Amino acid sequence: MKPAENDKQVTIYDIAAKLKISPSTVSRALNNAKYVNKVTKKLVKDEAEKLGYKPNSFAVGLRNNQSNTIGILISRINRPFNSVLISGVEKTARQAGYNVIICQSNDSYENEVTGAEALLSSRVVGLIASLSMETENFDHFQSFFDAKTPVVFVDRVPNLDSHKVVADDFRAGYNATQHLIKKGCKRIALLVGSLQRNVYSDRKNGYVQALLDNNLPVDESLILMLKTLSTEESEKATKKLLSLPNPPDGIFSTNDTAAAAAIITAKKIGFSIPKQLKIIGFNNDYISTIVEPSLSTIAHPAEKMGIIAAEKILQHLNKNTEMDTDVSEITILKTSLIERDSTR
Amino acid sequence: MKPAENDKQVTIYDIAAKLKISPSTVSRALNNAKYVNKVTKKLVKDEAEKLGYKPNSFAVGLRNNQSNTIGILISRINRPFNSVLISGVEKTARQAGYNVIICQSNDSYENEVTGAEALLSSRVVGLIASLSMETENFDHFQSFFDAKTPVVFVDRVPNLDSHKVVADDFRAGYNATQHLIKKGCKRIALLVGSLQRNVYSDRKNGYVQALLDNNLPVDESLILMLKTLSTEESEKATKKLLSLPNPPDGIFSTNDTAAAAAIITAKKIGFSIPKQLKIIGFNNDYISTIVEPSLSTIAHPAEKMGIIAAEKILQHLNKNTEMDTDVSEITILKTSLIERDSTR
Repeated sequence: MKPAENDKQVTIYDIAAKLKISPSTVSRALNNAKYVNKVTKKLVKDEAEKLGYKPNSFAVGLRNNQSNTIGILISRINRPFNSVLISGVEKTARQAGYNVIICQSNDSYENEVTGAEALLSSRVVGLIASLSMETENFDHFQSFFDAKTPVVFVDRVPNLDSHKVVADDFRAGYNATQHLIKKGCKRIALLVGSLQRNVYSDRKNGYVQALLDNNLPVDESLILMLKTLSTEESEKATKKLLSLPNPPDGIFSTNDTAAAAAIITAKKIGFSIPKQLKIIGFNNDYISTIVEPSLSTIAHPAEKMGIIAAEKILQHLNKNTEMDTDVSEITILKTSLIERDSTR
Repeated sequence: MKPAENDKQVTIYDIAAKLKISPSTVSRALNNAKYVNKVTKKLVKDEAEKLGYKPNSFAVGLRNNQSNTIGILISRINRPFNSVLISGVEKTARQAGYNVIICQSNDSYENEVTGAEALLSSRVVGLIASLSMETENFDHFQSFFDAKTPVVFVDRVPNLDSHKVVADDFRAGYNATQHLIKKGCKRIALLVGSLQRNVYSDRKNGYVQALLDNNLPVDESLILMLKTLSTEESEKATKKLLSLPNPPDGIFSTNDTAAAAAIITAKKIGFSIPKQLKIIGFNNDYISTIVEPSLSTIAHPAEKMGIIAAEKILQHLNKNTEMDTDVSEITILKTSLIERDSTR
């Protein structure tokens, strides 16, 4: 991300382009950081003077010995959705000369609290956070608010007045369910995560609304809540669903990990997909193209979510303004449905 | 990990067991950390006094306002091998009351350098590092050595006198190749990462040795070096190999990501697996059970590697001793071969 330039000020990007080196090297050279050799430092400083570069608040911050690190607190780094989101943050942060450090909660509240503590003591200049499945209390973010450290919540966000970037989860849940109905499904099961998390409650609400709009009954025995939507949990849930006297003819899984495991489990049991059972997932992880039959899913703009969250942090760091915590600025990103063989 | 107790000293684990709470809560209560309520603090302190608990160097460190965070510097968090390794570190660290923060290099040397900088400025008490594909210079670790911060290298390790935990990559490469030969392959291709990294050069050397031991020629046109062993690179490489006038009848891919992509690409081109082409991967990632045919692979003890690396760091923190950087302590973990349908 390139910060907004109203006054055509010379930036580190201009110096970087001129010298054909990376903006972060320029930034570090200008701030006398380690790991930049003397020749580069001199080259950069000479060019900066020539172009009339004036250091911005970021550079001043660095000289004042603040960290130039943005923290990410996220449920699980091994979920493709999360790692793509992190890539988006990193790409944006690095271009502006910031580093990124990551803490994972593994969907545990206690780990989230200690992770927040670790990032705080690491003196991050901004925090991007996605909640664990368990989190009900948000006090562990208070120290960041108190320190006026910009915080942006992404995807799994708290019920707080704060800056948030989310997907249109209700509509996505509605569309996924509507898709199964259009393909002929009448008994659609739902694999869903903790309803304390907006992403899952919104997707569930979309699912329920689509059933109601199509005059289909909402059968609670077909709605299974999984603690972490893992492969193991999905195997169990799928076995349970398919051994019902009246098993479902469609499954909407609110992540692809659980959806792929449902495909594999159903095939093992002897269900033909998509003939007897249609399955749709969520996220468009790589696995959705690998599993056979390939998995229909909702494409989630994870990278864009990360980029926007990082940009929001950088805006505040660059302007050197405080985030207004009395304002809830919510950015909602569109999702789209990808049809593959599991519902064809 | 529970630190060694020669003198039956009371530890935070004893207090935790008595009160049925987690060791990290005990640790934080004893150190007056945030996010522990007063009642718990009092309970823990009373129990500690009752049992005759004496704070160890870790607790003292915390009171001296050092961080209780271990840093991980790793290539890519989205590789299952790495995320499992990280889980092993986290499990071990958390049990001892430490947090873990992660930086990924995305296989870029520059990102590795800035990541090391970020972890250093986060004042981590120990570092576990696995090198990027590009890294040739190790100066960015010098500040950790200088600060006597314990450093353990894992998997992709530098050619330095240092503490390392690795797998038996030569033997694994030999075994994978020998397996293909036993299954009848005569022209075995190799997809390999940067030969600057021990893991890939060792696996390649094992491959070459197995060919030589079986009087098979080493054909350089069948050895393809991939920058990051990604899906995209593997697709290209597989297409190239299979369009040779005399295409290979076996592929040994040094990771599962590239092996799974090779299976999918070969199937698309029209090769029958395992009949015309046998493929074996490396790591035993989840994808190896999902792809069809399922992928034979080398099971890599990634979690154990993480646990051992964390234990090594904790040993030094608990004993409050410096790591002897004049000693190279290398721990080598065994791998094993898993036969699945791609070579059956």
